[in-house]
Amino acid sequence: MKNVVTIGGGTGSFTLLTGLKKYPINIAAIVSMADDGGSTGVLRDELGVLPPGDVRQCLVALSDSSDTLRKLMNYRFEEGGLKGHSFGNLFLSALEKIEGNFAKGVEEAAKILNVKGDIIPVTAEDTNLFMLLNDGRIIRGENEINHNFEIEEVGIKKNYLSPDAKANPKAVKKILEADLVVIGPGNHYCSIIPNLLVRGISEAVRKTKAKVVYNCNLVNKKGHTEGFDLDAYVDAINALIGKDRIDYVTFNTKKPYARLLSRYESQKELLVCLSEKSRENRGYQIVQADFLSEKSVVQNKADVVSDIRSFIRHDSEKLSKALIMIMELGEYENIIKNII
Amino acid sequence: MKNVVTIGGGTGSFTLLTGLKKYPINIAAIVSMADDGGSTGVLRDELGVLPPGDVRQCLVALSDSSDTLRKLMNYRFEEGGLKGHSFGNLFLSALEKIEGNFAKGVEEAAKILNVKGDIIPVTAEDTNLFMLLNDGRIIRGENEINHNFEIEEVGIKKNYLSPDAKANPKAVKKILEADLVVIGPGNHYCSIIPNLLVRGISEAVRKTKAKVVYNCNLVNKKGHTEGFDLDAYVDAINALIGKDRIDYVTFNTKKPYARLLSRYESQKELLVCLSEKSRENRGYQIVQADFLSEKSVVQNKADVVSDIRSFIRHDSEKLSKALIMIMELGEYENIIKNII
Repeated sequence: MKNVVTIGGGTGSFTLLTGLKKYPINIAAIVSMADDGGSTGVLRDELGVLPPGDVRQCLVALSDSSDTLRKLMNYRFEEGGLKGHSFGNLFLSALEKIEGNFAKGVEEAAKILNVKGDIIPVTAEDTNLFMLLNDGRIIRGENEINHNFEIEEVGIKKNYLSPDAKANPKAVKKILEADLVVIGPGNHYCSIIPNLLVRGISEAVRKTKAKVVYNCNLVNKKGHTEGFDLDAYVDAINALIGKDRIDYVTFNTKKPYARLLSRYESQKELLVCLSEKSRENRGYQIVQADFLSEKSVVQNKADVVSDIRSFIRHDSEKLSKALIMIMELGEYENIIKNII
Repeated sequence: MKNVVTIGGGTGSFTLLTGLKKYPINIAAIVSMADDGGSTGVLRDELGVLPPGDVRQCLVALSDSSDTLRKLMNYRFEEGGLKGHSFGNLFLSALEKIEGNFAKGVEEAAKILNVKGDIIPVTAEDTNLFMLLNDGRIIRGENEINHNFEIEEVGIKKNYLSPDAKANPKAVKKILEADLVVIGPGNHYCSIIPNLLVRGISEAVRKTKAKVVYNCNLVNKKGHTEGFDLDAYVDAINALIGKDRIDYVTFNTKKPYARLLSRYESQKELLVCLSEKSRENRGYQIVQADFLSEKSVVQNKADVVSDIRSFIRHDSEKLSKALIMIMELGEYENIIKNII
């Protein structure tokens, strides 16, 4: 079976893995560890655990257990001292405490939830995301960065992790052995970049013989990437993993319903577009198709962040189908060459 | 396979079920629902759920899942807003919320934990335990009763539940179909009596053709049952389930280590003894043997109640062996009669 590695976190990874799970492939999901908001932030502060939120979403996506157990993992308490806590986060934090470290806790969780594939925290270190702006201000933590809408206007001098975090060796190994490395979709500065800042990850992506695909986000983020076109996203990522390293980009061409779109636009979140000026040498191929989900999203009233979560989102089946096709593309090309 | 029903709650049920689980029998554990202390009390208050604590202990006892999952269920958070909460209690409370009622939540939990047997909350009603003392005072709730040490001195006029609770029909059915009904061990006023106060339970025990065994506690409780000998316990229970209804009583004859014993004695908790005056018609047979556990108990520093939990406790294997023998006794008697 071929080896597919995903790099991301949050809802983007959830969507991606839910689709990929159905194919006969080995999946390794590398998950960002910079989250410090919501239930995850409280657990980091109070229990001193590593951030469970992104890992939880991947566990649920790749779990083959009962519907109830999956629902349970995403359940949020709605009252009292537990209000806002995701049960799955408590589950991972308790396992981390019992097992003595986060990675072992995740392994046990994967066994209990009958998970297909590996879920690999990008680092075992307790690190935080920082952003140094052009005006000298430093924004600390994913949560603050996520809610700061002046970033794009002021401009970023540097994204970094502190303390400096070393990659989980298992993540590096999986990337080097991969047939396909899939980056995104996900929050650009809060899920995608933090993975690539971990020492050893970008280097591994640069070195691997795998095809590298970037699933471009559907919508730009207010105050973060409002002015980004597709090339800008790719350039930002290639700046970390190496010039022209991204081989393919999936790009959605289907327009969301006008009402949904105008709701996004009123919040200054516009669809990502292709640059009008055509580049001479893009260095990557664009796979354009309808990748849009038509399912409606159920909101949880205890989920304090769901109001800003995306309703315009990828369809997991459409996306994973395209990715598998991209991975197999070379095979067909070789077969055709041999026939000729 | 024969049907064994246990009636109890707390650590007593845990010990009993851990032993019984190893035999090829159908187990139905009827569990007290009057707990309102510790983690359970907070969840009842804040989330409005039914008390999960006693059910959790039975789930763990009868679970056939991994050691880690069992450890997880008993794990208590040690810091922050979650301090003192048992993970297993959160698990049951979240499942109750997801499934819409406690009984369904328990069923789902039993599936997830691969439980052997049925765990049956004695009632589906949100009820509380009350105690009316001879001086007119009313003590409300299991937790307050448990920590009130004047009860025996003042004397009890009445134990009751309010609102009045109707038995879970499944509990009644299981008792009526049982070959063996096992009462205790457990906290006399807080675990054993509350089960028998639920409308329909004592009636079912009176009617069933099953043999009824009472596992007498090892130690009297300060201010509650200090003056009790074995007959007093049996009489108190028979007063609810019917005269001479208890057929057998298991009674431990092995003395605990002197140091442990003196620690208990210093807290006015003495070993239960057989009455010196021999009764003419006891109406029940006493199975005297060594039922004492020699394992040491590990304390959890986050467990706010463990300091008063028992170190002198039953050995689950010795106890269950005796119970199975009692159940099979009739078989042997019949075989012997047939041979003769």
